[in-house]
Amino acid sequence: MTMTGEKGVALVVGAGESTGEAVARRFAATGHFTCMARRNGDRLAPIAFDIERKGGRARGFNCDARREADVVALFDEIEDVIGPLEVVVHNVGGNVRYPILETTTQKYFKVWEMACFSGFLVGREAARRMGPRGRGTIIFTGATASVRGGTGYAAFAGAKHGLRALAQSMARELGPKGIHVAHAVIDGPIDTPFIREGFPDMVAARPADGLLSPEAIAEAYYALHQQTRSAWSHEVDFRPWVEPW
Amino acid sequence: MTMTGEKGVALVVGAGESTGEAVARRFAATGHFTCMARRNGDRLAPIAFDIERKGGRARGFNCDARREADVVALFDEIEDVIGPLEVVVHNVGGNVRYPILETTTQKYFKVWEMACFSGFLVGREAARRMGPRGRGTIIFTGATASVRGGTGYAAFAGAKHGLRALAQSMARELGPKGIHVAHAVIDGPIDTPFIREGFPDMVAARPADGLLSPEAIAEAYYALHQQTRSAWSHEVDFRPWVEPW
Amino acid sequence: MTMTGEKGVALVVGAGESTGEAVARRFAATGHFTCMARRNGDRLAPIAFDIERKGGRARGFNCDARREADVVALFDEIEDVIGPLEVVVHNVGGNVRYPILETTTQKYFKVWEMACFSGFLVGREAARRMGPRGRGTIIFTGATASVRGGTGYAAFAGAKHGLRALAQSMARELGPKGIHVAHAVIDGPIDTPFIREGFPDMVAARPADGLLSPEAIAEAYYALHQQTRSAWSHEVDFRPWVEPW
Amino acid sequence: MTMTGEKGVALVVGAGESTGEAVARRFAATGHFTCMARRNGDRLAPIAFDIERKGGRARGFNCDARREADVVALFDEIEDVIGPLEVVVHNVGGNVRYPILETTTQKYFKVWEMACFSGFLVGREAARRMGPRGRGTIIFTGATASVRGGTGYAAFAGAKHGLRALAQSMARELGPKGIHVAHAVIDGPIDTPFIREGFPDMVAARPADGLLSPEAIAEAYYALHQQTRSAWSHEVDFRPWVEPW
Repeated sequence: MTMTGEKGVALVVGAGESTGEAVARRFAATGHFTCMARRNGDRLAPIAFDIERKGGRARGFNCDARREADVVALFDEIEDVIGPLEVVVHNVGGNVRYPILETTTQKYFKVWEMACFSGFLVGREAARRMGPRGRGTIIFTGATASVRGGTGYAAFAGAKHGLRALAQSMARELGPKGIHVAHAVIDGPIDTPFIREGFPDMVAARPADGLLSPEAIAEAYYALHQQTRSAWSHEVDFRPWVEPW
Repeated sequence: MTMTGEKGVALVVGAGESTGEAVARRFAATGHFTCMARRNGDRLAPIAFDIERKGGRARGFNCDARREADVVALFDEIEDVIGPLEVVVHNVGGNVRYPILETTTQKYFKVWEMACFSGFLVGREAARRMGPRGRGTIIFTGATASVRGGTGYAAFAGAKHGLRALAQSMARELGPKGIHVAHAVIDGPIDTPFIREGFPDMVAARPADGLLSPEAIAEAYYALHQQTRSAWSHEVDFRPWVEPW
Repeated sequence: MTMTGEKGVALVVGAGESTGEAVARRFAATGHFTCMARRNGDRLAPIAFDIERKGGRARGFNCDARREADVVALFDEIEDVIGPLEVVVHNVGGNVRYPILETTTQKYFKVWEMACFSGFLVGREAARRMGPRGRGTIIFTGATASVRGGTGYAAFAGAKHGLRALAQSMARELGPKGIHVAHAVIDGPIDTPFIREGFPDMVAARPADGLLSPEAIAEAYYALHQQTRSAWSHEVDFRPWVEPW
Repeated sequence: MTMTGEKGVALVVGAGESTGEAVARRFAATGHFTCMARRNGDRLAPIAFDIERKGGRARGFNCDARREADVVALFDEIEDVIGPLEVVVHNVGGNVRYPILETTTQKYFKVWEMACFSGFLVGREAARRMGPRGRGTIIFTGATASVRGGTGYAAFAGAKHGLRALAQSMARELGPKGIHVAHAVIDGPIDTPFIREGFPDMVAARPADGLLSPEAIAEAYYALHQQTRSAWSHEVDFRPWVEPW
């Protein structure tokens, strides 16, 4: 028997931190069987447990999204055991910054592998499953660095620009096949423990709602998935009301 | 007594055709007292009547959005008689195309006045009322020509680029004052009588949902207004799944 | 007898201030009969005199570039009396900044008329003369505000965005007819008396070559005109080495 | 004794095909000791021989620009034996196109490694040498895919977008240190044997000058290097007059 929430299956790759968790919870709350994947997938157990406790369906998966075998196995397992994927969210790759001369070859590669190559693997495997069904939503999480380079951002902006090009190329190729590919430009700091602990002065200087709420991003991702194919959005930006830009 | 729907007052300038009407109906359906404005505002009476028949609140207004006195009077009357504006949508200015040598000075001016200058008047008057209250949403309707020039589009793309710059400048100035300014890039043909009658071959060649649904655009505008200020979108594009781009 | 420099006729509209003067001198120095136009065209006499003293050909013209009759008369006179135009440079419209609520309708219109509408008139009249000959260069001077709105820039960015859309639309239409249309994004302060007097602290804080040299811009415009049609540039940016961006 | 042309040393990485060769010849023609690098560097010998026969200075180098050790060794050898680099051009990475489902992991990686990672290695090593001297020019060759994704371009547009982000990030970091970083968007087919043989119908349908001339691109690269630091261009596009866009 295939177990699904009645709205089909959602997958969030990079579900370990605030945004990914919020997105997973949002889809679960509307009846999606929500799959969450990350390295150290066991850390997802409490979230899955909590979602199920509240009446949803969820499961955590161990997956290094930079490894083709891991990603293929993840998609195979979900489609075999849980059901057909309706929506896949790629939410991997944190902001890093190094002067160009301190950007070692290994760092440059690792940043690309994490923020861009993993998106290729996840996007392609999603397309492979959704294509024959002619339906599905694929959402990539972008950043300020997706649309603008900057001092210290050779590696991170390079990876994020590459991910944006992937999303745009896939949207043009897959849209006419019924698959909605969207790219969200998160243009500001998200309200995460990492930001609150790492940049206490910046956070303290902001008024209420001065950081991007993970739940608000999740709500917007859900709305993207709900869009009718007569009016799909490909790219949307998000920033807090007080964000300078 | 101030009459309002319980969700506050919405205004759609350029409510005469498909998108504007759909946006008006969408806001009315969720409890906004919906004001609609256009030249020949009497043509709005059937829509207002229908909205009220269904239990909503609506009223049509006569306004030439290119005339400062008209626009100021419209905002004054609404704020005096109906109530404080929560959301204002600018939806004026149709696609026109002329070779550069056939673009008379009058045409160039008229296109700008219609598609850009009216947006300035509407946006500024909205900002004037919303500013002191520190809340409100202003949405501008853009087009492909907002982001790309093209053969024959010197006038129309010029006006739409100008409108986009207005929206972006207002967003940066007014965001920190609590006002959400958004710009929607409608990148494809909308399902209107004008398109169906004017381009029958193009329409016939498209599959189901091959034209932008006015209701889908309206839904998206409503979602923009619903966004929490912690994660406002400034620019969103919309295109049908089959649209080449 | 038609009087021309041996390289044909150049026209700089907006030749009164630093950049326009430098561009005029650059084209004159390479054998173009250089026409300069501005309001108060008599102020151009000393520049024309100096160019001629150095062996070049130049003449000043009185022209309010916002008036169709003026612009048509300017082109007619030059083509009748001097010779066929090879290159036309539009260099009109200074940076202004007002909060949206202080942007009067008159200001908004005047800024557009100066920075955008004059470009339409000049560009169209240039295209009208160059079209039948299948050759010629038209260069528009843009600014940071051509590509980005900002607080206080509703009017100026609106006008400059409109000018950029004009340039791009004309390039697409006229390129295949043999006319090179280019748009230069001047992304930083130019070394002018206006800047040196108006912003002494900013100027003092910059090292050598920290302001855009009018002569360097002029050199680049000349290079654009020299490009072979096998590899035309449409858009080029310019900024001083120390400019933050 | 250090051997240099009197204008200093230029390096073109990816000098094997038409554009690279033209750029090398252009810099050699103005007195630069021109170093050319590619895999199978022995194929560069005839070009170097011809440049020297005409009175210039040139030398070919064997270098796989995807290998850090190769790139570091190349820069070390040039700086040790020839002289300090004044200008470095990265011109690697040909246009490839695959549907997303046919984009194997190996292809995706190889395209990135060739078109983007090699640019990082070359750019960083150039910055390392030029930084302490506070002077120098680094030019990256972009393409249509640098600014726009498209069907079949997930890999190539991804790599080219990444290269553009590298160029922009380096420009912002290194500009204030006196190093000019530029990115050229080659938006059309270049007149190469590969294009003439591979797309004979497209070529035949174009009028004279309908393909980008390598010599014209080379001239423009030389002009970028000649720019004064008071008015550096960061991004320039190039397309043939007849190119649709």
